[in-house]
Amino acid sequence: MKQSLGEFELIRRYFQRPVQRSPLGVGDDCALLAPAPGMQLAVSSDMLVQGRHFLPDVDPRLLGHKALAVNLSDLAACGARPLAFTLALALPRADAAWCQAFSTGLFELAEAHNCELIGGDTTQGTLNICITVFGEVPSGRALLRSGAQVGDDIWVSGNLGDARLALDVLLRQHMLPAPVLAQARQRLEAPTPRVALGQALRGIANSAIDVSDGLLGDLGHILHASGVGASIDISATRKLLRAGSHPLMSAIATSRLDACTLAGGDDYELCFTAPVAQRANVEATARACQTPVTRIGSIEALPGLRVFGPDGQLMPQRWPGFDHFA
Amino acid sequence: MKQSLGEFELIRRYFQRPVQRSPLGVGDDCALLAPAPGMQLAVSSDMLVQGRHFLPDVDPRLLGHKALAVNLSDLAACGARPLAFTLALALPRADAAWCQAFSTGLFELAEAHNCELIGGDTTQGTLNICITVFGEVPSGRALLRSGAQVGDDIWVSGNLGDARLALDVLLRQHMLPAPVLAQARQRLEAPTPRVALGQALRGIANSAIDVSDGLLGDLGHILHASGVGASIDISATRKLLRAGSHPLMSAIATSRLDACTLAGGDDYELCFTAPVAQRANVEATARACQTPVTRIGSIEALPGLRVFGPDGQLMPQRWPGFDHFA
Repeated sequence: MKQSLGEFELIRRYFQRPVQRSPLGVGDDCALLAPAPGMQLAVSSDMLVQGRHFLPDVDPRLLGHKALAVNLSDLAACGARPLAFTLALALPRADAAWCQAFSTGLFELAEAHNCELIGGDTTQGTLNICITVFGEVPSGRALLRSGAQVGDDIWVSGNLGDARLALDVLLRQHMLPAPVLAQARQRLEAPTPRVALGQALRGIANSAIDVSDGLLGDLGHILHASGVGASIDISATRKLLRAGSHPLMSAIATSRLDACTLAGGDDYELCFTAPVAQRANVEATARACQTPVTRIGSIEALPGLRVFGPDGQLMPQRWPGFDHFA
Repeated sequence: MKQSLGEFELIRRYFQRPVQRSPLGVGDDCALLAPAPGMQLAVSSDMLVQGRHFLPDVDPRLLGHKALAVNLSDLAACGARPLAFTLALALPRADAAWCQAFSTGLFELAEAHNCELIGGDTTQGTLNICITVFGEVPSGRALLRSGAQVGDDIWVSGNLGDARLALDVLLRQHMLPAPVLAQARQRLEAPTPRVALGQALRGIANSAIDVSDGLLGDLGHILHASGVGASIDISATRKLLRAGSHPLMSAIATSRLDACTLAGGDDYELCFTAPVAQRANVEATARACQTPVTRIGSIEALPGLRVFGPDGQLMPQRWPGFDHFA
């Protein structure tokens, strides 16, 4: 039998932890925050909705992890150090087992990044998770989308496409051997925000974004904000699909795998640009952060985003970025 | 015919305004904020869900107003000056007319308080509005729930109970003459956050909270946080129901009206405590802010919250505060 709790008891039992960062803990009308002198506060909000960002049968512990991970990924893309977050949660009912699992996944990741829950809201309604996260970054040193320079290398952290590949399997659009699916599903359900890499890239990268809606669409935001164009090499991006190198990988059409890698979304990796002169520095920084990085192309003056095939020919295909209302 | 828009076009058209407060506008991974030296940032999040916080047929312009108003009310309760907010919005579809009306109501209130939209998220899903608001308050001077002192007067701003009375009529639990309903409905659908009063009470009030879940429950949070008790006078709280003095007011049982006033919720007024020596100061401050205030009782050492009837006898009734999962 599911246990039902009152709102205040639910907050007290699952979402109230000792707080050091804010002069007040959870439970006043506002939380108070003061960034250290010379620091700016980086702020980002993400809302997760069932059917859009997670499937109805997802493990609530993984969902707690992912809800915070996608927000930490935005801080990483700005080069900010996580400080604190607020959680607003609509739940169909006050289900103690669900809250226990969700809050466990949430706080495991929060504690790993020393990021404190400082306030929020709970209400009855269709399941919806809205987190606003706060980080700090030295004034004027945040990584922005608008800093890409002609000649910059384009880099991507970690892997791309596995999350979308797993989602497609869960939606029965194709099949994968169980060990390949398990690995890809980990990427979908428990993404790793690149928090250390983002901070380490301050002063090295000229621009950055986190890949949440698909590489081409998100890189497109950098190009638009920076007033530049780019070419990318599909031989490099194909290596980003981790499932692609799995010995048990099924035969799935290359064009479909490319679509996952280039436009799949839900990756929460960093895409960033850096001067060619910083190439060795980028690689050393990535090693220090234990986060693999791959160079996939170059920023160019010619507007637009071009994808070149293994034969060096411009590829005619178009992979749209993810649009929540398309 | 309803017009459907893509996600980025929807944001650009309805939710992107020039920004002065944040070094970045809407559209990077994070917004950046830096409170002025000596200031703390006050942060609050509220989530509004259909059926809980608004009825399905509510005017979207009023909903835009209310979504921000309930958040500004939290800043008011801390004595903070509004600076900025983020908006996360789940919409069943990208409906241009709805977005136009919603954003109009939202920005009218935002501009009245010089509070800027600095970021957010839009997604497809059951209608859900989550706003996180940021204000600034001189370090160490925020109004808290925990500062009530034995002997303090208990004050309430504006009116209490009309919002709940209107909701009960809309839910067909009782009837009111149209002009009385129209006035009460205004309180339900377009609450006025007491932003100026909250700031003016810094250094005068010892504690404050905003009344969102009902007076007795919210005053109970002050008592709990401050380790004190209170007595309130129902002759004073009965004057807070604005509909009560309307010449066309229907005959509704006094006990039902008391329940609206004492435990109705959705009022977004300030309940605060201040030393008796500040009585004239409180009244002058309220006049300067053009916000009426009413003295309803006293803070006492004896734990618990006592309501005294017009005959001076302790009233036996219990009015529970609003619990989203009760």
